[in-house]
Amino acid sequence: MKKFMNEVDSILAESLRGLGQAHGELLRIEEEPTYVARADAPVRGKVALISGGGSGHEPLHTGFVGRGMLDAACPGQIFTAPGPDQIVAAARAVDGGNGILFVVKNYSGDVMNFEMAAEMIGSPCESILVDDDVAVEGSSYTTGRRGVAGTLVVEKIVGAAAEAGASLQDCAALGRRVVRATGSMGVALTSCTVPAAGRPTFDLGEDEMELGVGIHGEPGRRREKLATADDIAAELVGAVLDDLAPPPGREMLLLVNGLGGTPMMELHLMYAAAARIAEARGFRIVRSLVGNYATCLDMAGCSLTFSMLDDEMKGFWDAPVHTAALRWAA
Amino acid sequence: MKKFMNEVDSILAESLRGLGQAHGELLRIEEEPTYVARADAPVRGKVALISGGGSGHEPLHTGFVGRGMLDAACPGQIFTAPGPDQIVAAARAVDGGNGILFVVKNYSGDVMNFEMAAEMIGSPCESILVDDDVAVEGSSYTTGRRGVAGTLVVEKIVGAAAEAGASLQDCAALGRRVVRATGSMGVALTSCTVPAAGRPTFDLGEDEMELGVGIHGEPGRRREKLATADDIAAELVGAVLDDLAPPPGREMLLLVNGLGGTPMMELHLMYAAAARIAEARGFRIVRSLVGNYATCLDMAGCSLTFSMLDDEMKGFWDAPVHTAALRWAA
Repeated sequence: MKKFMNEVDSILAESLRGLGQAHGELLRIEEEPTYVARADAPVRGKVALISGGGSGHEPLHTGFVGRGMLDAACPGQIFTAPGPDQIVAAARAVDGGNGILFVVKNYSGDVMNFEMAAEMIGSPCESILVDDDVAVEGSSYTTGRRGVAGTLVVEKIVGAAAEAGASLQDCAALGRRVVRATGSMGVALTSCTVPAAGRPTFDLGEDEMELGVGIHGEPGRRREKLATADDIAAELVGAVLDDLAPPPGREMLLLVNGLGGTPMMELHLMYAAAARIAEARGFRIVRSLVGNYATCLDMAGCSLTFSMLDDEMKGFWDAPVHTAALRWAA
Repeated sequence: MKKFMNEVDSILAESLRGLGQAHGELLRIEEEPTYVARADAPVRGKVALISGGGSGHEPLHTGFVGRGMLDAACPGQIFTAPGPDQIVAAARAVDGGNGILFVVKNYSGDVMNFEMAAEMIGSPCESILVDDDVAVEGSSYTTGRRGVAGTLVVEKIVGAAAEAGASLQDCAALGRRVVRATGSMGVALTSCTVPAAGRPTFDLGEDEMELGVGIHGEPGRRREKLATADDIAAELVGAVLDDLAPPPGREMLLLVNGLGGTPMMELHLMYAAAARIAEARGFRIVRSLVGNYATCLDMAGCSLTFSMLDDEMKGFWDAPVHTAALRWAA
């Protein structure tokens, strides 16, 4: 195992310290219990948007804390759900008096701990469950579909609505609408290596890929010979669009997400392939994002996410955002 | 070799097509000869800032084309200098009538081809040669020091000056001042794999690292056993600061740059280690950037760059920038 680290047990804390120091104007890091909060939180009168989950998927979620997106993120240890104590502490710290909204990826541990936290908080609280991965139903981490890179789309759009003053109920309803409009599927060219394990999570032959892989290295639909970018894109686009079944001509967002070890050059090449296929099927790509956003440690691979956009979602997608990993002006 | 690709020969063209489609509001792609230009170029009365070099280092330079940074980038084939024809075509396309300024990384092929282009253009033209890598003097690609991630700092600061209306001479002088104030050094945990070669550029043992590696996988200062993040950071910070020899208390920019295959979690951990060491030596980190900016295909590794900032440089660093890979408002 080759990683920039000192001790396995301190990786998360040291990494968060670096994030906090590099972005002190945006966010603050709390260590006991651990959470990352907007520097200016609580924002009075605003719905507080909070996410979290196991670490190892950076920038998801800590890199999305800031104006126009998350009020707080609760990072668990690598591939381990955050504890209810972290979530409760974060919620109390960023509660602006207008309710708490959790964005939860659909993994059993996350779902349980966010539910426990919701019961302990006292303030009005809603949850949006994200399960955008069309690859498989259930896995070693999940009952039902997994939550993957589409979570970023939910957090961006709902974050903008919350920033604009939308109510807890409206933010929750919007987020659930984005979840229903969003599908993703990934492919791995290599395994990831979890530091505490010290060796690759799975073995993949020199000429193999794992189609439908999860963001913890969970098995996907099948393993097969490495194909061309065009063939891989066709498989992923087909799976997602068949599942979403958008009406012809629908305006779509396309997110090409790197899993950690794949360079931008390949991600842009995959974007070109995926966009061409989707457009040939009659859809219009009107918003795009390409980069490493929901990663799986050092895994080489990528995922494709499509979201069917309506005008309200487009407006919130375009709204200003100022976080460590996603930043744009109006 | 496992990469998202169709044919080795078409990787660059397909990847640029994806970049152009994902960022049509920012830039346009020309294919024969190949360059990437600001969507709104030429900007009348503005110094045109142009860079380029071999591909495989994305987002450098194509991801830095846009408002507040580059007017054009000329991508060569992977690890191959762009031809003079590309540079001349780009310069003519983005010439705003106030002179052309090249930012050239110090590699023999780049230096030669940008010089040839300068002679062919006709318009007033200056060059800034970037040679920030303190690791070695000369390499298989270079006479003198190599140009690496510090190039981004030059492009950002000079890009802001050009956007603000500075003259060709002032932009060139500022850029040379940033070069003198900037030093970098990198470390590789794995090799990269050049698609046309199909196998890793060099072999590195399971417990080894290459200290001072170049962004084409060129040898560095020495190869040794993988050390802790703190020890690696101490070596890199020491080498750069000993070379720059900033006066105590000097305000510094710290860029922790991933080489392509290293996840953000490790980069932030390296940031924390490097900042602590620099601050213990009496310097103040006043600006920070952490991410994959000047990469070496899929290489796992990182580099550290320090720039000694003055007030003018700080102002230009903070100025708005709107490119595919670097984006912030005032």
